[in-house]
Amino acid sequence: MQTFGIAGLGLMGGAIALSLRDRCSVPVQKIFACDKDTDTLNSAQQDGIIAKGWLSENAGEMLSQCDVVFLCLNPSTLISFLEKWETSFKSGCLITDIAGTKGSIAAAAEKIRDDIDFIPGHPMAGTHVRAGGKTGFANSAFCDFTGKNYIITPLTRNKKENLVFLKDLIYKMGFANITEVAPIEHDQKIAFTSQLCHVIAASLIDCEPDTEITRFGGGSFEDLTRIAMLNAPMWTELFIENRALLLERIEQFKASLDTIKSLIGEAQAQKLEERLSLVRERREDMANRAGK
Amino acid sequence: MQTFGIAGLGLMGGAIALSLRDRCSVPVQKIFACDKDTDTLNSAQQDGIIAKGWLSENAGEMLSQCDVVFLCLNPSTLISFLEKWETSFKSGCLITDIAGTKGSIAAAAEKIRDDIDFIPGHPMAGTHVRAGGKTGFANSAFCDFTGKNYIITPLTRNKKENLVFLKDLIYKMGFANITEVAPIEHDQKIAFTSQLCHVIAASLIDCEPDTEITRFGGGSFEDLTRIAMLNAPMWTELFIENRALLLERIEQFKASLDTIKSLIGEAQAQKLEERLSLVRERREDMANRAGK
Repeated sequence: MQTFGIAGLGLMGGAIALSLRDRCSVPVQKIFACDKDTDTLNSAQQDGIIAKGWLSENAGEMLSQCDVVFLCLNPSTLISFLEKWETSFKSGCLITDIAGTKGSIAAAAEKIRDDIDFIPGHPMAGTHVRAGGKTGFANSAFCDFTGKNYIITPLTRNKKENLVFLKDLIYKMGFANITEVAPIEHDQKIAFTSQLCHVIAASLIDCEPDTEITRFGGGSFEDLTRIAMLNAPMWTELFIENRALLLERIEQFKASLDTIKSLIGEAQAQKLEERLSLVRERREDMANRAGK
Repeated sequence: MQTFGIAGLGLMGGAIALSLRDRCSVPVQKIFACDKDTDTLNSAQQDGIIAKGWLSENAGEMLSQCDVVFLCLNPSTLISFLEKWETSFKSGCLITDIAGTKGSIAAAAEKIRDDIDFIPGHPMAGTHVRAGGKTGFANSAFCDFTGKNYIITPLTRNKKENLVFLKDLIYKMGFANITEVAPIEHDQKIAFTSQLCHVIAASLIDCEPDTEITRFGGGSFEDLTRIAMLNAPMWTELFIENRALLLERIEQFKASLDTIKSLIGEAQAQKLEERLSLVRERREDMANRAGK
């Protein structure tokens, strides 16, 4: 049985540790973690979620013992972590990550030591809806992977057996779909499904100072803005990291918004109804494909 | 016990009939309906949801017997219905409606016969989320009023006892909050919480032709676009009816979107993070006030 190491015991790091223990039958003795926060490490150990924890400055001691490492850090921290500890990883180990942008991480993964294998990944899960956007290790239990999407962006240098192992593990964790794409395609698609949606939700809240407006809510406003309860430092980093692609998506969205706005302003009922009918059909197609 | 009449047995008309029977202890013998569709009326009668149905052209025969009338029609149909049948309403009856704009309807309600009383209303409920935006009488059972908001825009001419009666009925139906405002305030607030959100959801789908994009969805995209499965004729009418206020809201939203876009484009990490932190705090305030 492999030894697993989790670098960064935040919301997702904690959820992965829980999922390894509860869904993948990994004995707790084989789950290690490192984090910058002593209390988090102690709490995870006391709760029987990890066997042992190391402070970040001693991460090398953990990494040298791990066959599989999950890097659960923000993109910029992740790349500097990888540079700092590259020599410490155990020979033959499999590394993966969970960051929401993949271009720069895949580039870093290409360059690491030949005897270790880094498969970049992105579990499409969080806690926005159920736990009101709560973050951090303490809320890990609210982060359920069941039925969710997982994107991986394999490199040509990745070992086939590692890919098979990782995909098997992902399904065991509860994820329903694994999509394999190039890092650039990931970043393009995620700029739309994830980053643009967060920018829109944030803009909706940004433009309305009246917090009593919720008395006029019927579900739409609540659904469109729940993700505005975001982790500000993380999303700042993701938006800026992927800004070239995100700005393109914002412009595409604004063009559609302007077209629909013009049809409304000019009271072009027939054209507007046709356009909205096409939108409805397309969204229904999407729901039928995704089952939601 | 009063006799209730429902004009228009669509999704909401059906849901109100069900709710009168099941939550307000109104005997089915006291629930009537009129509709343009014979099959709908027959089906409602067979299912024990109404005692008797009339085709729209015979609505007068129903209205002359009803103490409380719910007009469950689109705004434009509603106003012409009211004009056509004004002389048929029973003297002393209470009329209310469910339309998503209130300005023109309140104006029409001001002008009706002195011996009948029209309190304009807007139940903030639908089926988007649970039933994937399904409409029509057949989906009425998916439209649950529990915990939802209800807006009424009373007129100075409304009788106090009718207001008390209607509000009591609304709470019995399961709604959690009743907000009383002027019609113009309703239309301003709803332009934001409801119409702008539908325009945004529609624009998001409008700008992305790839229906396979859902493989990259993590919940945000799904939440922001579920309401794009909209009733195109109804929303076309609501958008155009309320266009002056809606266009203002679209411009406010675009201003916030452009500000956030600029901060991203200029990689102004600190300012962006500050702005997103304020957004998060404001949305959390809203959630705390509304309990969701």
